[in-house]
Amino acid sequence: MGVDLPASTSLSPGIQAMIPFLYAAWSDRHLSVPEVESLRQQAGALPFLTEEDKPVLREWSDPARPPSRERYQQWLSSGRLAAEALPEDRTASLAELGVWLGLAAEEDPDARRDFWAAQLPALQELEANLGGVQEDTYRSLFPLYDQRQKLAEAITESRIDPNDLQRILEGERAGIIARTKKILLRPSFDRPTLRIKEDYREQVLRWCRELAQEGIGALSYPPEYGGEDSMSEYAGAFEAIAYHDLSLVIKFGVQFGLWGGAVYNLGSKRHHDRWLRETGTLELPGCFAMTETGHGSNVRGLETTAVYDHEHRELIVHSPSIAAGKEYIGNAIHARLAAVFCQLIVDGESHGVHAVVVPIRDAEGHVLPGIRVADNGYKMGLNGVDNGRIWFDQVRVPVDNLLDKYGGITEDGSYHSPIRSPGKRFFTMLGTLVGGRVFVPRAGLSAAKSALAIAVRYGLRRRQFPSESMRSETIILDYPNQQRRLLPLVAKAYALQFGLDHLLDRFVARTPDDMREIEAMAAGLKSYATWFTTAAIQECREATGGKGYLAENRITDLKADTDIFTTFEGDNTVLMQLLAKSLLTEFKKSFQEDGNIAVLKFIGRRVTTMVTEQNPYVVRQTDREHLESPGFYQTAFHFRARRLVTTLAQRLRAYIKEGKSAYEAGLLCQTHMIAAAEAYVEQLVVDAALDRLEGLETSDVSETSDVSSLLKKTIQLYAVHTIEGHAAWYLESGYISGQKSKAIRKLVDKLCAELRPEAGVLVDGFGIPDKLLGAPIAVV
Amino acid sequence: MGVDLPASTSLSPGIQAMIPFLYAAWSDRHLSVPEVESLRQQAGALPFLTEEDKPVLREWSDPARPPSRERYQQWLSSGRLAAEALPEDRTASLAELGVWLGLAAEEDPDARRDFWAAQLPALQELEANLGGVQEDTYRSLFPLYDQRQKLAEAITESRIDPNDLQRILEGERAGIIARTKKILLRPSFDRPTLRIKEDYREQVLRWCRELAQEGIGALSYPPEYGGEDSMSEYAGAFEAIAYHDLSLVIKFGVQFGLWGGAVYNLGSKRHHDRWLRETGTLELPGCFAMTETGHGSNVRGLETTAVYDHEHRELIVHSPSIAAGKEYIGNAIHARLAAVFCQLIVDGESHGVHAVVVPIRDAEGHVLPGIRVADNGYKMGLNGVDNGRIWFDQVRVPVDNLLDKYGGITEDGSYHSPIRSPGKRFFTMLGTLVGGRVFVPRAGLSAAKSALAIAVRYGLRRRQFPSESMRSETIILDYPNQQRRLLPLVAKAYALQFGLDHLLDRFVARTPDDMREIEAMAAGLKSYATWFTTAAIQECREATGGKGYLAENRITDLKADTDIFTTFEGDNTVLMQLLAKSLLTEFKKSFQEDGNIAVLKFIGRRVTTMVTEQNPYVVRQTDREHLESPGFYQTAFHFRARRLVTTLAQRLRAYIKEGKSAYEAGLLCQTHMIAAAEAYVEQLVVDAALDRLEGLETSDVSETSDVSSLLKKTIQLYAVHTIEGHAAWYLESGYISGQKSKAIRKLVDKLCAELRPEAGVLVDGFGIPDKLLGAPIAVV
Repeated sequence: MGVDLPASTSLSPGIQAMIPFLYAAWSDRHLSVPEVESLRQQAGALPFLTEEDKPVLREWSDPARPPSRERYQQWLSSGRLAAEALPEDRTASLAELGVWLGLAAEEDPDARRDFWAAQLPALQELEANLGGVQEDTYRSLFPLYDQRQKLAEAITESRIDPNDLQRILEGERAGIIARTKKILLRPSFDRPTLRIKEDYREQVLRWCRELAQEGIGALSYPPEYGGEDSMSEYAGAFEAIAYHDLSLVIKFGVQFGLWGGAVYNLGSKRHHDRWLRETGTLELPGCFAMTETGHGSNVRGLETTAVYDHEHRELIVHSPSIAAGKEYIGNAIHARLAAVFCQLIVDGESHGVHAVVVPIRDAEGHVLPGIRVADNGYKMGLNGVDNGRIWFDQVRVPVDNLLDKYGGITEDGSYHSPIRSPGKRFFTMLGTLVGGRVFVPRAGLSAAKSALAIAVRYGLRRRQFPSESMRSETIILDYPNQQRRLLPLVAKAYALQFGLDHLLDRFVARTPDDMREIEAMAAGLKSYATWFTTAAIQECREATGGKGYLAENRITDLKADTDIFTTFEGDNTVLMQLLAKSLLTEFKKSFQEDGNIAVLKFIGRRVTTMVTEQNPYVVRQTDREHLESPGFYQTAFHFRARRLVTTLAQRLRAYIKEGKSAYEAGLLCQTHMIAAAEAYVEQLVVDAALDRLEGLETSDVSETSDVSSLLKKTIQLYAVHTIEGHAAWYLESGYISGQKSKAIRKLVDKLCAELRPEAGVLVDGFGIPDKLLGAPIAVV
Repeated sequence: MGVDLPASTSLSPGIQAMIPFLYAAWSDRHLSVPEVESLRQQAGALPFLTEEDKPVLREWSDPARPPSRERYQQWLSSGRLAAEALPEDRTASLAELGVWLGLAAEEDPDARRDFWAAQLPALQELEANLGGVQEDTYRSLFPLYDQRQKLAEAITESRIDPNDLQRILEGERAGIIARTKKILLRPSFDRPTLRIKEDYREQVLRWCRELAQEGIGALSYPPEYGGEDSMSEYAGAFEAIAYHDLSLVIKFGVQFGLWGGAVYNLGSKRHHDRWLRETGTLELPGCFAMTETGHGSNVRGLETTAVYDHEHRELIVHSPSIAAGKEYIGNAIHARLAAVFCQLIVDGESHGVHAVVVPIRDAEGHVLPGIRVADNGYKMGLNGVDNGRIWFDQVRVPVDNLLDKYGGITEDGSYHSPIRSPGKRFFTMLGTLVGGRVFVPRAGLSAAKSALAIAVRYGLRRRQFPSESMRSETIILDYPNQQRRLLPLVAKAYALQFGLDHLLDRFVARTPDDMREIEAMAAGLKSYATWFTTAAIQECREATGGKGYLAENRITDLKADTDIFTTFEGDNTVLMQLLAKSLLTEFKKSFQEDGNIAVLKFIGRRVTTMVTEQNPYVVRQTDREHLESPGFYQTAFHFRARRLVTTLAQRLRAYIKEGKSAYEAGLLCQTHMIAAAEAYVEQLVVDAALDRLEGLETSDVSETSDVSSLLKKTIQLYAVHTIEGHAAWYLESGYISGQKSKAIRKLVDKLCAELRPEAGVLVDGFGIPDKLLGAPIAVV
């Protein structure tokens, strides 16, 4: 706060600390003589009271000698002044005030800070033992008491226990999330202001090491390399770390997920034995050198080469141009090894992209000969991550460093691969790296949840403009506009959690057969979720006004750090097109495989839709029961997803018939493709959320019925708000009438208003500890 | 770049510098003997060639003795290596390469940097005199030659001269904009990386002083105080400064606009005499202390008091609580005086909010007794602005410090004001400060233009994924999705310029009678334009991918710095409601004033609309001629604006009839109010843009016809894209059919494609010098 207390009076620190208690004792006149006696006795045992203090205290708490009006006023006024200066994250309690007053009266407060902090528990006990201190006493001492109280009420006004929500959101990852949070709450994880990238990077490296030492880094590796063989645990740790610092989670992901993942997924056992354990402990920092300046998302067109030299059994790794340099590589400044993606050339023949492990620094951290590294400099955010560019100048490494699970070089110097088709080989290799797209959106969702928790709590606390009664200003979140801004985002965070969990479950249980589908799903969900993160945090920034613009309230860092999520691990627009292509392939395949039956099925479904959904009655149906039924929004989501793929296929075919090439036709339908992919993802999210709800309802835990009806309403809001967002499309398609579109808009308003009293508990359900949230405006 | 050149060979710097010329001379074999002779002669005169160099040069350029294949290859390879390392902002020329090679061969390059930079002109002349060096020569030397060339072509492929566009955009402010830019291009305005707020603030203060010394700060003040009495010139300077650094423009606005404006607009002549001249030169830094922590946008509820003490003829300025502290005050750390907004209390009676000038620091910069200032700390952006919180503890100032144009205290100690009604007085005082809302959106628009220029140029330069021919990857801006992202924003920037110019003209020519209207207009345009700024820069960030996330490419700073524009000078949501209320008042007034005639007019207009616009033919009309006609979109915009106000009035009336209070009714219609306000602003923007176009078409400058048809298409895109954004509403209202809605969407696609070849010239038309743009990815 930077606000100093007024100069202390001549009273000793010990007596100053007792002032709030003396004031309360005399203010609440109903205190009985024995109660006051007990106060005197307990106070006498406090370590900060000197021998000189004790008679003063005895005198001032003598039931027979009430204080003069003047002294009583003095107590009130010192208490009030201190209360005003009390940091916003402290509760409005006599104990906190006592500590604050005692500290302020010290000659050298800095030296005594720890001492006074340690007095808090004893004073809290004293306060509890005072018995019912009246509300008015607190109100007279604490200028913001009512506001704080109101927030506490606003949060607790719901009948729901946030822990129930948290349990549902965290599912089987609750254990690892709690374990990770516990580490993150250690004092060593306090977040200082780090403006200079070098300092920030060192701090993040230290944090990362501490996590590694606790075994968090290796969670997904097999036990023989120090891990627990659990992708699901790794995912839980990842999303929890994202509540703390986004640079840390990215650095963590680069080291253990990307670099470690490349060794684990693309290498053979000898590679695992050589590098995996030390990777998990962060004794061996590594990086993942894929992207090149000249290419970005087009991995297949990488220019870096690895030429095989049979004579020396070596690979010569080389960047043929500046633009072929590896770009934006995380861990580039700390890494000792790099998994370098390059075109493997054997006997003059290129076998496509492979990964080669290249040492880039020695054990002392000096860059090795032939390696050039340049710092990427400051970025919008994530300045705790050491991104850099890397070039290779004819760097020779033993052929053994080729990560050869999907393609290696035999003793006799010839290339071999278990996968014959270079295209299939390439996609299989990339497929093993899909994990990034499964985890990144989870970190993004955590960041969005943090911002939403901050903004919603601020909305419950902050008042603006006198309301009618003129007694107090209106709570911001009581403005419908503010509800409209935040509540659909909170609802979407819930829905997305269920969608991402579904993806994670599929990913964890994956088989080669469903990899294509999971990859497509991951591409879509990564994009959808990270776009949500960007939009949600931006909205939170605006909804918290000037306060949200201050770095101390964290929304700014959340925004800056996650803004690149829409770009890295594959640019969202590119990923959405990948998904659309996969949807088209599936669509075509269903026709090819089933032949005429498929056509009949297709026509049949179309006719059914016309009859059951697009009939004049349903198109105009606006009763709340219909609009709130899962059946309505599920059919609406499915209709959109199906229709957009069908029309996409038709448009593409028409263009090709006109003589356009497949490439040109794709280009012309680009926007359409992205819409089709989005519709698929939304259908997936709503289905996953409804499945989860159904699971809750049929579970035999009866006390969850309130929770599940809250969640039901939350998912409803997500669904109806999403349909509202596509209202133009539904109207154009004749799926809803103008009246129905208006009714949907009104329903969104209504659901927002109905969820307003639950807003506090909904964000508390995210389970983010106050300390990790970190924003003064968000603390009760 | 951080990329070092390879170690130089044994050749001297002078000879190294000649290598590109030697290579070119021998590569372009058609050079005649006299041409080579002339090269030798000119080169002989170059100051960097030593006596030892000259015979070498003579030997190597002897037409009779061609170089060996080996030497020729050596030249090419040194040239290429240097060309790769050439910073991206240098042109692909032999001269640049020569300078670069010469410098790299120096033993101590740092010491010789300036020397070699000074050689450029002579080498450029040499290059020009070489005559037609073939394209292939450049292509073989410069790896990115084709890309650079392509961008240059992409920008120049249009027939339009960007200067013509710039002239139209800048209008009568072209002179001041050029004058300001000239100052900003001085080396003293180079932008270093400033991560620590204290350093950044000092830099901004120095910049601000330099502008003040040039008379830019005082532009809006009367000549007797060093000014030019021109709000319009001030506006031009303001938007030009925003091309340089947003912290600077805000600091500039606080000092000269807010603080100076308060003295000028709320004070009397004696205040002007005392403070205005030194304010304009920045010898007297001041701040504008209005907002309080506890209140934000609700100025009327400020808690700071100024109690009049007749005995001493003094005002006692006091902050009664922590929350009553002045919050977020720009210039708080540098200011010596503060215009403090407080409740004026005379004889125990409050006369509402007034401004009092309170000294807060002495001439040495020490904080005065009774004043407490706390730094606001780091913010998302604008860290070069010293925002802080200020509290006053019973601070006494002479009553003469009351800015008393609208309310003062007489000799006998009684309050007097030329405006009797406290409400009207309050709004009159606030009204004089509307300037901020006229200027801030202009700065926001400048920032958006910078981001758009960077993103569009990057889109023209960057390639991704091989296109069909596989010869080169596709230019990003050739992807329809990328066009969709950026071109409507470019179009909107043009439309907004015309809208904001209209507002500025009205503001400059304002009379007391139209102040209310101008205030409402300013509230709306400020919100609409700053929301645009936020959205546009965000889109540019995403559209430039990883490159856009690097601080060096400036989009990140533009984003972080302007993000608060939607909040300060009045929160946008609050301002939009103000505008809506004013629209409702006008709407009601028209009925009250004209009585039955108004009702008849209203019904008449409604019927006309039904017949001319909402008839089944027009609702379904999808021919391009209709959709592109200004008539169509103008009527559509007006219809929406009118309809939303009418239905808003009806809804409010219905709620009140139901027994709800005006306050409750307003709350229930909040979203509707904002929509109505937005529709009004959009109508205003499209009208202003069409007016401007009409002016161009009827002007007798015949060579502008190409320009005006380009502008026409640009405004069309803005209009049609805006209608597309409201498609759901138009469909619901039965104003367009589903078919027409689809046709509108297709038209947006088409206009984007048609404007794609003009994208380069459109952003060049913004007239932002490359140096101010500053982003390496945006430089040809």
